[in-house]
Amino acid sequence: MHEFPSSLPPTANRLTRIRIVLVRTSHPGNIGATARAMHTMGLTRLTLVAPRHLPDRDAVALAARGAHILEAAQCVPSLDDALAGAALTIGLSGRPRQFAGRVLNVREAAQEAVRHAEHGDVAFIFGTEMSGLTNDELARCAIAATIPANPAYPSLNLAAAVQVAAYELRVAAAGDVVWSAPEHPRATYDEIEGLYSHAQRTLTAMAFLNPAMPKRLLPRLRRLFGRAALEREEVNILRGILARIDDLLGR
Amino acid sequence: MHEFPSSLPPTANRLTRIRIVLVRTSHPGNIGATARAMHTMGLTRLTLVAPRHLPDRDAVALAARGAHILEAAQCVPSLDDALAGAALTIGLSGRPRQFAGRVLNVREAAQEAVRHAEHGDVAFIFGTEMSGLTNDELARCAIAATIPANPAYPSLNLAAAVQVAAYELRVAAAGDVVWSAPEHPRATYDEIEGLYSHAQRTLTAMAFLNPAMPKRLLPRLRRLFGRAALEREEVNILRGILARIDDLLGR
Repeated sequence: MHEFPSSLPPTANRLTRIRIVLVRTSHPGNIGATARAMHTMGLTRLTLVAPRHLPDRDAVALAARGAHILEAAQCVPSLDDALAGAALTIGLSGRPRQFAGRVLNVREAAQEAVRHAEHGDVAFIFGTEMSGLTNDELARCAIAATIPANPAYPSLNLAAAVQVAAYELRVAAAGDVVWSAPEHPRATYDEIEGLYSHAQRTLTAMAFLNPAMPKRLLPRLRRLFGRAALEREEVNILRGILARIDDLLGR
Repeated sequence: MHEFPSSLPPTANRLTRIRIVLVRTSHPGNIGATARAMHTMGLTRLTLVAPRHLPDRDAVALAARGAHILEAAQCVPSLDDALAGAALTIGLSGRPRQFAGRVLNVREAAQEAVRHAEHGDVAFIFGTEMSGLTNDELARCAIAATIPANPAYPSLNLAAAVQVAAYELRVAAAGDVVWSAPEHPRATYDEIEGLYSHAQRTLTAMAFLNPAMPKRLLPRLRRLFGRAALEREEVNILRGILARIDDLLGR
């Protein structure tokens, strides 16, 4: 009944040119959860810089159906190795104090990443669970990306931060169109007026409406159903109810 | 040196009127991670509908500094209890097949939530880890919200989905302004021309530039530094380098 948009925009394949780089991650579980977050958004390339522990069984479990990303992940000793070949480097940062480059929110940074991915590789870099990227690491980035957050506690879990960034990358690359609800044809003017006439007759027959003293009843019904923007099927249902009342009154 | 925007917009406090509702959650860890995700975005109200297990030590650990949200969470037996008093109900759904209400992406749904929170309470509802909300549960929602995702694997971890929704709620309520980078005054026209003149003299003195046969050297330097939009301090650094070369040549 519902359909996804039949085709994704041509920028969608740029997600394959954007690598996620995790630097000195402490907990293998976060690496696994990162792989799952990436897969849910169509990102495929993961690079691990000197993780404290290599991905283990926990990591694979948390990766769920993103386990193939974990398996294909590159593991390198230094950030420089991870950034080789990247035409644009973006580092996630809570609040960079010492940073000479551009500071963007994660939405703008994702849009910039997708623009650059037309022509070259892009690296989106995440620091440690405890303290993020160091100033030296961030200095290797052209852009510092920030996730808007509660100033009193801006510390997202690492994989949660990757999920937000991956989500913004997907929206930037593939759009955020959701399939539309099934078409419910709207009722036409004459169908709706037919309903009101019917309602007036029946309500009168019920002695609920006194045509000599109608007060505000019909205008209120018009206001209610006008706001609801009646569909044809709904008009049919309401007229069916009225017709049933007519039957009962006629007995 | 850097400052957060000095004040949040008045809509920021609407986050306190938006409750996160988790329905029949299996894993206490996801409840804890949800509390953390909420706190990072300034959401405070959590309602648990018939969780399989009550929050345990794992949940508290994963809640990190959001543990107070876990502690204040309401636990109720049915979804109806959780929705009591809500003026707008939004259910997260992967791909609703049987849904009569509006289907919005999570960004639009968050904007709608914040608009409604001016006048009443809003509930944002998440189903189980395995299968989300049932059709019956979703039918109690006015809006089905969808997170744009990889059609081949749209299954975000529960707490990751909460993180994305909470992020969009925060952006909708409090904006996504990031503090600006420190002001680096741009160099003026005459400062930049002074640099080029100096460079021309020094490069000539170095016998790197032959004024009789300048080729394209100076235009190329103009192109490079023009693109970089030189700052005053950078002009000073470059002229300092040139002056040092002048000194060395003068010896």
